[in-house]
Amino acid sequence: MEQLPRVVVIGAGFGGLSAARALAGHNIDVTVVDRHNFHTFEPLLYQVATAGLEPADVAYPVRAIFGREPNIGFRCGAVSAVDLDRRQLSMTDGSRLDYDQLVVATGATAAFFGIEGAADFAEPLYTLRDARLLRNELLRILEEADAHPERFADGLCFVVVGGGPTGVEMAGALGELLRVAITRDRLRIDAARTRVVLLDVADRLLTGFSPAASAYALASLRARTVDVRLGVRVDSVTRTSVHLADGTTIEADAVIWAAGITVDGTLAASLPGERGRGGRVPVQADLSLPGHPEVFVIGDAAAAPLGGGKKGTTPQLAQGAIQGGRHAGRQVLRRLRGEPTEPFHYRDKGIMATIGRRAAVAEVPGLPVIRGTLGWLAWLGLHLVYLIGFRNRLVVLVNWSWRYFDWPSGPRMIVSDVEDAADAP
Amino acid sequence: MEQLPRVVVIGAGFGGLSAARALAGHNIDVTVVDRHNFHTFEPLLYQVATAGLEPADVAYPVRAIFGREPNIGFRCGAVSAVDLDRRQLSMTDGSRLDYDQLVVATGATAAFFGIEGAADFAEPLYTLRDARLLRNELLRILEEADAHPERFADGLCFVVVGGGPTGVEMAGALGELLRVAITRDRLRIDAARTRVVLLDVADRLLTGFSPAASAYALASLRARTVDVRLGVRVDSVTRTSVHLADGTTIEADAVIWAAGITVDGTLAASLPGERGRGGRVPVQADLSLPGHPEVFVIGDAAAAPLGGGKKGTTPQLAQGAIQGGRHAGRQVLRRLRGEPTEPFHYRDKGIMATIGRRAAVAEVPGLPVIRGTLGWLAWLGLHLVYLIGFRNRLVVLVNWSWRYFDWPSGPRMIVSDVEDAADAP
Repeated sequence: MEQLPRVVVIGAGFGGLSAARALAGHNIDVTVVDRHNFHTFEPLLYQVATAGLEPADVAYPVRAIFGREPNIGFRCGAVSAVDLDRRQLSMTDGSRLDYDQLVVATGATAAFFGIEGAADFAEPLYTLRDARLLRNELLRILEEADAHPERFADGLCFVVVGGGPTGVEMAGALGELLRVAITRDRLRIDAARTRVVLLDVADRLLTGFSPAASAYALASLRARTVDVRLGVRVDSVTRTSVHLADGTTIEADAVIWAAGITVDGTLAASLPGERGRGGRVPVQADLSLPGHPEVFVIGDAAAAPLGGGKKGTTPQLAQGAIQGGRHAGRQVLRRLRGEPTEPFHYRDKGIMATIGRRAAVAEVPGLPVIRGTLGWLAWLGLHLVYLIGFRNRLVVLVNWSWRYFDWPSGPRMIVSDVEDAADAP
Repeated sequence: MEQLPRVVVIGAGFGGLSAARALAGHNIDVTVVDRHNFHTFEPLLYQVATAGLEPADVAYPVRAIFGREPNIGFRCGAVSAVDLDRRQLSMTDGSRLDYDQLVVATGATAAFFGIEGAADFAEPLYTLRDARLLRNELLRILEEADAHPERFADGLCFVVVGGGPTGVEMAGALGELLRVAITRDRLRIDAARTRVVLLDVADRLLTGFSPAASAYALASLRARTVDVRLGVRVDSVTRTSVHLADGTTIEADAVIWAAGITVDGTLAASLPGERGRGGRVPVQADLSLPGHPEVFVIGDAAAAPLGGGKKGTTPQLAQGAIQGGRHAGRQVLRRLRGEPTEPFHYRDKGIMATIGRRAAVAEVPGLPVIRGTLGWLAWLGLHLVYLIGFRNRLVVLVNWSWRYFDWPSGPRMIVSDVEDAADAP
């Protein structure tokens, strides 16, 4: 039996799934590798962290995604090294995996920018585990404040660092969680002394958006009593506080880190060649690794040119990964057919961020800024469409509707691997 | 302001919730205490362990349950000691809680009967954490078998110890999980060399049921290729095997422990007085602790007389706890009104166990044994009715229907506190 061409896709995020889908149904042996056996719908992790959605609502088993695609297999495991000469991956369990063509879609991780204490005491929000642990931590703090009001004489304070979409969404959702905790769960917490603080070094929120969108986000968050402080730099983080460069200290019960992402420390960082901003791997116009036409790097890990005559690199968003994955998959097929590869061309489909129920902002090229309830409905619809692409439709729809309109009965369980959730440190 | 009577209910299981509900709306300050901030619907934990249901499907926040009952509060924490003289509870966090009347509904825990290695290497199924960890372990073994077939040259073997409802349900559901893993997830596992073994020391399954029901369960499990071995005694358990008293050794990739429960080691074990079978606390006819009319012990923790002129003790089932809780709640009210307490009287509403999809057995007093599809529908309906009592109706109904009829897209995610699920030991 002839050996089929072997294509390995590392990473089951938006980019990896998109690349594998483009290879489905062809006479190729495709293996998707991921350390988790599920895909994570990252844009909604902040909802899991604030107990609005369940982990299962934003994760889906990779095997189920490709259940009807016999040429796409899955390997649950972590890749420790790529040997480009031998075209071979080393796995952390000691085994090896050969490839003829490789798609590296390993994403990025939280960037702490060397800020003292940040990596130790601030909680990132980049994996399902991050979101689950953060949720448990937030709910545990609320229960502790209820049981021991004397320990929280100065009130409760949650600090979110970073005013991009994740930080804005997290701050808005945190405010809503606190409101529900006090009004519906009747936790004995003084609303007047409970604060959510959002910090950013820039002079406006959502710097990737238009100034009008930034102003709307700021006004919406402030209307929700979020204490937004712009133009401030975090100097250090301790277990109980955030210190700013201007000398201010903010006592914090939890610090959520949404300040940025980096490719440093991920598998892609081990690839040869120079590095772009945030550790991103510069790639050729066809998204291949310089000197290795059989290796494509896509998504957050890559500094992909925008293409189409435009300067700049593809933004580190789901759309960039989805489009890059599809492109890489197609180039793999072209190479197998002996055809020349094509340059990538990023199509800007717009950006959006939600501040809370019925408050979101969306910018679609060629349209005026959409905001408020309409923006929120657009945000909800778009996310549902994307989720629906891989998750069973009815359940998500009903779950979502229900949880959005009857949030008070939402899943605020502290579900931990630790024996006694209440005793966790 | 006059101090309201303080009633503390320890435990948010079926018994504790039932007791608290009976006290809702009265002029009493009720506090439910539990180490978890959620109630667990224990009869369905085996579904969580076999990835048929999500943790959130069988758990519900206590605060949300009593959200509309202003006289019922919740305290998330673990009780370390009961001072009956001072009428005061000590919490593990060092704080204290005073009561005027107390309901102890702390349940039971897995009994290992001193069998060597059982507590260390066999996995119980009694808490949501047990179920989650077991699920992760089972899915991890399946992924490992797929990635490293050479390590599983002798095939895969899962051993379930205990032929009561939990063991029977677990063995049946495990068989279904394996079938889905092989046929739908296309895991490279040889079905012919994958075994589920169910062991029990008795000469029939479901000893609490009629012999006809036992025979039906046995035939159903064997038809599902479960290797049922009766009249066998487990001598010891190691990391990789189960040793029987007759000298047989069964190599096992996982051992699930469903052999029985005990009150030993739980808070109720610290109460004064003698102990019944399985460490249960003997109580008066009104369910109060001998010598302490202000303390009621209910549910699995108590050896409650059946009442109504019948000999014997209440079975350790949800029904016993629900009825006991309601009774204890009513006696608390009677005592506050200065009325004499009433004796408890257990009403047998029947027992049921499911072997798998469309195969269950139910015994209701006065009716012939219900089994097969009808038994399964009865089982499903009854559980839905009970779940629906505290969980938002539409979501559960849709989730359940969907997951039962489209199981292959079920939630088979390895969601762990550990960083890399694939690397977990």
